[in-house]
Amino acid sequence: MTLAEEAAALDAADPLAAKRAEFDLDPAVAYFDGNSLGAPPRHVAQRLADVVREQWGGRLIRSWTDGWWDAPERVGERIAPLVGAAPGQVVVADSTSVDLFKVLVAAVRANPGRGEILLDAATFPTDGYVATQVGRLTGHAVRRVPVAELPAACGEETAAVLVNHVDYVSGRLHDMGAITAAVHAAGAAVVWDLCHSVGAIAVRLDEHEVDYAVGCTYKFLNGGPGAPAFVYVASRWQESFDQPLAGWAGHADPFAMEAGYRAGAGISRARAGTPDILSLLALDAALDVWDDVDLAVLRAKGLALGDFFLHCLDELLPGADVPTPRDHARGHQISVRVPDAQRTMAALHERGVLGDFRPPDVLRFGLAPLYTRYAEVLRAVTALRELS
Amino acid sequence: MTLAEEAAALDAADPLAAKRAEFDLDPAVAYFDGNSLGAPPRHVAQRLADVVREQWGGRLIRSWTDGWWDAPERVGERIAPLVGAAPGQVVVADSTSVDLFKVLVAAVRANPGRGEILLDAATFPTDGYVATQVGRLTGHAVRRVPVAELPAACGEETAAVLVNHVDYVSGRLHDMGAITAAVHAAGAAVVWDLCHSVGAIAVRLDEHEVDYAVGCTYKFLNGGPGAPAFVYVASRWQESFDQPLAGWAGHADPFAMEAGYRAGAGISRARAGTPDILSLLALDAALDVWDDVDLAVLRAKGLALGDFFLHCLDELLPGADVPTPRDHARGHQISVRVPDAQRTMAALHERGVLGDFRPPDVLRFGLAPLYTRYAEVLRAVTALRELS
Repeated sequence: MTLAEEAAALDAADPLAAKRAEFDLDPAVAYFDGNSLGAPPRHVAQRLADVVREQWGGRLIRSWTDGWWDAPERVGERIAPLVGAAPGQVVVADSTSVDLFKVLVAAVRANPGRGEILLDAATFPTDGYVATQVGRLTGHAVRRVPVAELPAACGEETAAVLVNHVDYVSGRLHDMGAITAAVHAAGAAVVWDLCHSVGAIAVRLDEHEVDYAVGCTYKFLNGGPGAPAFVYVASRWQESFDQPLAGWAGHADPFAMEAGYRAGAGISRARAGTPDILSLLALDAALDVWDDVDLAVLRAKGLALGDFFLHCLDELLPGADVPTPRDHARGHQISVRVPDAQRTMAALHERGVLGDFRPPDVLRFGLAPLYTRYAEVLRAVTALRELS
Repeated sequence: MTLAEEAAALDAADPLAAKRAEFDLDPAVAYFDGNSLGAPPRHVAQRLADVVREQWGGRLIRSWTDGWWDAPERVGERIAPLVGAAPGQVVVADSTSVDLFKVLVAAVRANPGRGEILLDAATFPTDGYVATQVGRLTGHAVRRVPVAELPAACGEETAAVLVNHVDYVSGRLHDMGAITAAVHAAGAAVVWDLCHSVGAIAVRLDEHEVDYAVGCTYKFLNGGPGAPAFVYVASRWQESFDQPLAGWAGHADPFAMEAGYRAGAGISRARAGTPDILSLLALDAALDVWDDVDLAVLRAKGLALGDFFLHCLDELLPGADVPTPRDHARGHQISVRVPDAQRTMAALHERGVLGDFRPPDVLRFGLAPLYTRYAEVLRAVTALRELS
């Protein structure tokens, strides 16, 4: 069987094949950047225009009480099943960077008498920038530790540990259960960054007794460019959740306009300012595509796409330098190291193969099981061989 | 001349009358909440649908380099003339609450050795909540002072002063020039909250040598519900601007993915996380209505609408309790105190007159010169008389 025949057979047997039609994708393009910017579900454009005309224009200020004000919690509840969270623990608000700041400060405040924050040494940069700023303000030292060494590095000085669930460069998936247990054994709290795992993997926050998490909605959740992020605070930490961006939207009674802050009940206290309704309702619309998705099927296809990518590399580009784990300890991306990655990715773009590159030398190919086809994987690897 | 004839004459002579047609407003409704949620310009719905289909769906990840990444600065430059700022000093990002946090921390860091923050005692609540959080983290005392007493209250301990340009309850306009000069005379920096003045008054930040400002785009700028806020940092403060939400979007070279933070040049360093593109481009579209607006004409109409509102009150409800200044030291709103304000406003809503209420007893009527008509002012006061 040729690779093309294999791809065709895999596409024909794909239980998620019908989902592709729900997305607005240029058929001339093979899109491998759903791990950076998810593709738009077809109905989002019209839904958003309706929100502007009917809710904003038609109902005007009355829409705030007709569903806008509570949208951060309501949309959060739609994300909750994707991260394994029971109700009342997820809210959508602000950006990942801003939410990391809230959660890290709250985490160290809730764990006093300990002087350090441990940071995934290979973290996406903004997590490190934010942790540094938190350390400046709260007096905590910030220590970078490779994830494999985090369990041993946690000690009695560790207040909180910030770790990425899936490494954004290599695609490696870290062991949420084992790391969380090790952090807890040292008396510290863990903050998981789910940006590259939500919508790819059936994340199990409650099952692993995770303390806090932050995640992005514009990658595998297809929420739209710069769509608001979400915050998870485990129920047991909510009453002590004392966050520094305690704006009016997190107040117990925002429209009472009280001079003093009283934190709202439950997860609402993770909110800061007025919610960004247009982006939030675009995300709300985009989440509709998840209603009938079995996360086990999604995960299986994501891994199968990756396996087929590796198989194509083995056949067409043997010896390719692949930092992504060949076993299944990975998210839904395959990375390939090449000498001139930026130029190679630009040439792939010219051929209609859209991935991205991360310095210094990594090509990233995101695999979005809701719309990526096996035939496109073969197309990407074929194009890569032509450029090699 | 009857009040109805007066209203008709004023509407007939209104130089901004044609702007009303640019907005999508239910003709059955008299809308007086443009100081809380501006009405949608008609073209925004279609423009936003086009952004989703063409930029997000059509260009996908390539749009980030085709204009999305720099949109915060580009849209900021469109707001700059409305606040009297020369280029390079305004950026659109995050919410007002979050931006206040950035700016207040940066302001006190840039003015070391002083232990207090002064706060407008009648401030919109979120400003006070944020100032309190800043004080907790930086060790500054936060002292509430009535605005009239601020100039005398500033002293050698004052690091920064946070004051609202227009009081959100009474509509009183504070003297930006005099207060800024007094704050400077004491060696402190001033942060102006422009939420209720931008798009109403020709704000003159540069002329008054203001240090920092934050403002809202969803009120008189009609940017959409929860549209992102803007930050002004005067050029002379930009190099020392050291803000606590220093996420990757404010980095000098974000896509280099460096482990350490290096603040971007100029106003860009006021950015935090990934910009919220859909809301930002809705705002961008909404700003088109300002292209041909003379701010002096806008201001004159806003004051004339208020004068006519007061005149109608004098005729129809003599003795009404009006906390808004009768002279022109006010923004574009008239407030009326009534015993049961919440129920009265609900009854006005039933009559198609949409204002809002602020505890404990204030009815607020926003006057948006781009679409409010004098005949609607008469309708509002007439309805209010019927309920009295």
